[in-house]
Amino acid sequence: MTRVADRLLIAGVGLIGASLGLALRERGLVGEIVGLGRSAENLRVARRRGAIDRAERDPARAARDVDLVVVATPVGTIAPLIATLARTLPPDAVVTDAGSVKAAVVADVEHALGATARRFCGSHPIAGLDRAGAAAAESDLFEGRRCILTPTARTAPVARRRVLTLWRAVGMRVEALPARRHDRLYALVSHLPQSVATALVNAANESEAGGRALAYAGTGFRDVTRIAKGSSVVWRDILLANRTAMLAAFDRFSTTLERLRAAVDAGDADAIEAELRRASNARRKLDPAGPRRRGAA
Amino acid sequence: MTRVADRLLIAGVGLIGASLGLALRERGLVGEIVGLGRSAENLRVARRRGAIDRAERDPARAARDVDLVVVATPVGTIAPLIATLARTLPPDAVVTDAGSVKAAVVADVEHALGATARRFCGSHPIAGLDRAGAAAAESDLFEGRRCILTPTARTAPVARRRVLTLWRAVGMRVEALPARRHDRLYALVSHLPQSVATALVNAANESEAGGRALAYAGTGFRDVTRIAKGSSVVWRDILLANRTAMLAAFDRFSTTLERLRAAVDAGDADAIEAELRRASNARRKLDPAGPRRRGAA
Repeated sequence: MTRVADRLLIAGVGLIGASLGLALRERGLVGEIVGLGRSAENLRVARRRGAIDRAERDPARAARDVDLVVVATPVGTIAPLIATLARTLPPDAVVTDAGSVKAAVVADVEHALGATARRFCGSHPIAGLDRAGAAAAESDLFEGRRCILTPTARTAPVARRRVLTLWRAVGMRVEALPARRHDRLYALVSHLPQSVATALVNAANESEAGGRALAYAGTGFRDVTRIAKGSSVVWRDILLANRTAMLAAFDRFSTTLERLRAAVDAGDADAIEAELRRASNARRKLDPAGPRRRGAA
Repeated sequence: MTRVADRLLIAGVGLIGASLGLALRERGLVGEIVGLGRSAENLRVARRRGAIDRAERDPARAARDVDLVVVATPVGTIAPLIATLARTLPPDAVVTDAGSVKAAVVADVEHALGATARRFCGSHPIAGLDRAGAAAAESDLFEGRRCILTPTARTAPVARRRVLTLWRAVGMRVEALPARRHDRLYALVSHLPQSVATALVNAANESEAGGRALAYAGTGFRDVTRIAKGSSVVWRDILLANRTAMLAAFDRFSTTLERLRAAVDAGDADAIEAELRRASNARRKLDPAGPRRRGAA
């Protein structure tokens, strides 16, 4: 495979950023990898593990002489950081991000870049673990996973092509979607589940003094709420940035939950079973040959 | 260990019933195991796997000369089935169930048994897999898992003791709770998560024609909704039987979800983060050293 960059800047060397560095390094697809971060300790871990070659804490220095930039920081910091990097970035350098929300982020980035917005192509590599930081990085994190690109009319073909090549190189299945459609979809299949898992934990935790009810949680509860362990800052930014799609998703969910609640309230066995069966059939289609898992009844 | 029964009747040889048979057989803790079921094919599987010694499809014959009965059928059928079995059951035989709802079931069973209600002690072994039937049974299903007994003032000490011995013998951590408290707790940590997972799948599935949104679901969504694959009949019965506690649980959940929704609507970063952080902290306490798992961001 051809190189994806001569000098790559990974801004934000957390799970995603450091895993990207490891994956590219392992495949020999990049010259130098510069890591920009705020935590000296995390940068040290990233360097020790070989995810980056050089650590920088100053954006102006980090951006010098790089030809590709991946910003993998919380959604709320992506556009301001790219605005700062743009001041010292070479004119030909291509920029992407790894944010879970696209419409607001892409609009903010394009606004920040102004006349040079053509160098940017937004992306959302859909990969993760329930642990964070460079210490949790894995070189095969992206293997076989989906990545959504959200180019706009302003995006240069070369930017789109280089970002596509980057994520394909680490094993992702890449497709392009309009940013708004991406946001509606991921509100429903990712940000809403996160919100619902959060509300479930809080409801159970607040039901008895000292969170005693949670002591009775079995593997079913643990599965449903595992994602609630995620970073509050990361998810705060996602929910804020995807506000419009989230409000619509909350409403859709309230509709289906209220349908089930009303059936329970009415003691309507057929209506309850219909709701359960519809969900069971749809969910089974998602993994017809999924692995066996323990779950509380 | 001493025998738990000379002749045990397992009524309902599904995942729980057949796993119990396998666990007792493996430990040599029972004389004969009689399996009562409706599906000849499932009974054949149970017998071939050694979960039962003898298959019966007629309750009157199945109950003859047994000294312990475990009813592991869907919640709605437990009391009627015990009423039928009681007609041919020896006077000293002890009866328990494995239902996930206790107050309504225990009341119905005690009513059905009348003067012989003292032979019954309700139980809820909290164990499961996301597959059903005797084919999915595992002899270590109960190992280290929790089991709740719900004896009442009518329960004979000998019944309670024998049921306690039974579940302990297959490795469970057994404790007793009042049936209503059990139902409130499991509404929150099991039946509500099931309902929420169901509503999540239905919301995502209905959002675009042909369920296209679900194609974008990552491992996060899969984790949150895995339990939605469960049996519609089993869960219909649970939600129906635990109606009162479920309505309270739905309300608790609506309160915490609405708090988060309102914060998103207001664009209140601090309030959003507070909700997420509270849940994250509580959830992390549940498995401080949990296994690493992939999850979509």
